[in-house]
Amino acid sequence: MEQVSAVRSHGGTQGVYTHHSRVTGTPMTFAVFVPDHAPGERLPVLWYLSGLTCTHANVMEKGEYRAACAEHKVIFIAPDTSPRGEDVPNVDEYDLGQGAGFYVDATQAPWSANFRMRSYIENELPDLIAREFPAADMTRQGITGHSMGGHGALTIALRNPGRFRSVSAFAPIASTLNCPWGEKALSGYLGPDRDGWREYVACALIEDGGRLPRLLVDQGTADPFLAEQLRTDLLQNACDAAGMTATIRLQEGYDHSYFFISTFMAEHVVWHAASLHGAP
Amino acid sequence: MEQVSAVRSHGGTQGVYTHHSRVTGTPMTFAVFVPDHAPGERLPVLWYLSGLTCTHANVMEKGEYRAACAEHKVIFIAPDTSPRGEDVPNVDEYDLGQGAGFYVDATQAPWSANFRMRSYIENELPDLIAREFPAADMTRQGITGHSMGGHGALTIALRNPGRFRSVSAFAPIASTLNCPWGEKALSGYLGPDRDGWREYVACALIEDGGRLPRLLVDQGTADPFLAEQLRTDLLQNACDAAGMTATIRLQEGYDHSYFFISTFMAEHVVWHAASLHGAP
Repeated sequence: MEQVSAVRSHGGTQGVYTHHSRVTGTPMTFAVFVPDHAPGERLPVLWYLSGLTCTHANVMEKGEYRAACAEHKVIFIAPDTSPRGEDVPNVDEYDLGQGAGFYVDATQAPWSANFRMRSYIENELPDLIAREFPAADMTRQGITGHSMGGHGALTIALRNPGRFRSVSAFAPIASTLNCPWGEKALSGYLGPDRDGWREYVACALIEDGGRLPRLLVDQGTADPFLAEQLRTDLLQNACDAAGMTATIRLQEGYDHSYFFISTFMAEHVVWHAASLHGAP
Repeated sequence: MEQVSAVRSHGGTQGVYTHHSRVTGTPMTFAVFVPDHAPGERLPVLWYLSGLTCTHANVMEKGEYRAACAEHKVIFIAPDTSPRGEDVPNVDEYDLGQGAGFYVDATQAPWSANFRMRSYIENELPDLIAREFPAADMTRQGITGHSMGGHGALTIALRNPGRFRSVSAFAPIASTLNCPWGEKALSGYLGPDRDGWREYVACALIEDGGRLPRLLVDQGTADPFLAEQLRTDLLQNACDAAGMTATIRLQEGYDHSYFFISTFMAEHVVWHAASLHGAP
């Protein structure tokens, strides 16, 4: 792992790091904010998975998480959304290929060689964090994300019961089985057999018995993607049908941008911190 | 004036606007955040002048001012740093020409036709704000800024006694007479007669009797521009020699970026709000 930059901000260190990923076969870049802490003190970790087109940098610059993370002593990790590079397959579209990994392990050519963001986020990067950031207490993790990354947070948490004490999302895709973004991406990465998609579909994982300990979702009512792509109603229905407690809030007039995310970021950090600093 | 965008954020509206400027002879773009307020309620105004290379967008995206402005009911205005456009003079340098207006009225060709940021910020834009934003109470104004814009805030406030109740700056240039950035820009815009520069030199205006009601400055100790360009020591000396009260804080380990600015932005907003909401 190589440190690209480390800057003092909000009483902590905002770093950017790169490493060669074994699972994607490419260099991968990610951002980590570590609040100031006592020598030997260990802090819980909050993962943030970004949405389509984003890198680690969007939330790092616009997410407004550092003040709350510093106050509540939470390490904030922002990975990239896909492998990248000239040798990595791509198409000239914003919702497939580079910047659009959808947090799946692709099975279809040409994607399968590099697009293994599930394994990267579930295994390789947490192992790296545990090795390289001694302050990170990996027994206390929360996860959140935005849009495609909100769906990523939901699916990763649903497939890994017990790993995350708290799960939240900003304007997540509810079901990749039921929206054009999901149908396009999963067709590309996983092929036409939709039964094989279910482990990458938040609502399907809930229908199939997956449970989350705590779930908080914020969704703007002026989000242009709400009706066709995000379908918060499907997530609410799945939680209701499963008897799973969830706090799903419609935020009047907010859109899909970081102007929305940054508004509710501190609340999410505080909400996660309550679980992460409480009893297990 | 035309609205480019208006987005709900942090319990207010973050807008971007454009208009044809009479004084620069070009279209000019600026950002205004207006917190939610009661019908007929009027809110004080905080100006933020940006630094070299910036537009209105840098602080709008990275400045983290909206939460504090919404809580303390302060309108936040972020102008551009120069006229821009294909027909506007420019050089291929970051510290002269477009993006580097230095808040002066240029007297030298080719700059004098368009580079009149002093008149734009002191007169034209406030008049436009007063006309177009009925919630803006122009009897209650504060001003701040970063680097070149911090110097702009100081000089504009020093030249206009009584206009601003509170003045602050992030890593301001202290004296354009005593740094390479200032010498280059003022030589270009104003010509070689350095006596004519003094109305555009913060320390000189203080030496010449200018006073500020309240001054707060934050400066990072790891700022790479501190020793050669910013010279906070000169500002401290000028304030001391003039017997002018100033709170000039050195912030250990912070640099010149928005990671620094955003860390202290809320404190500045609260500090301005105390003056802006108090008795005149």
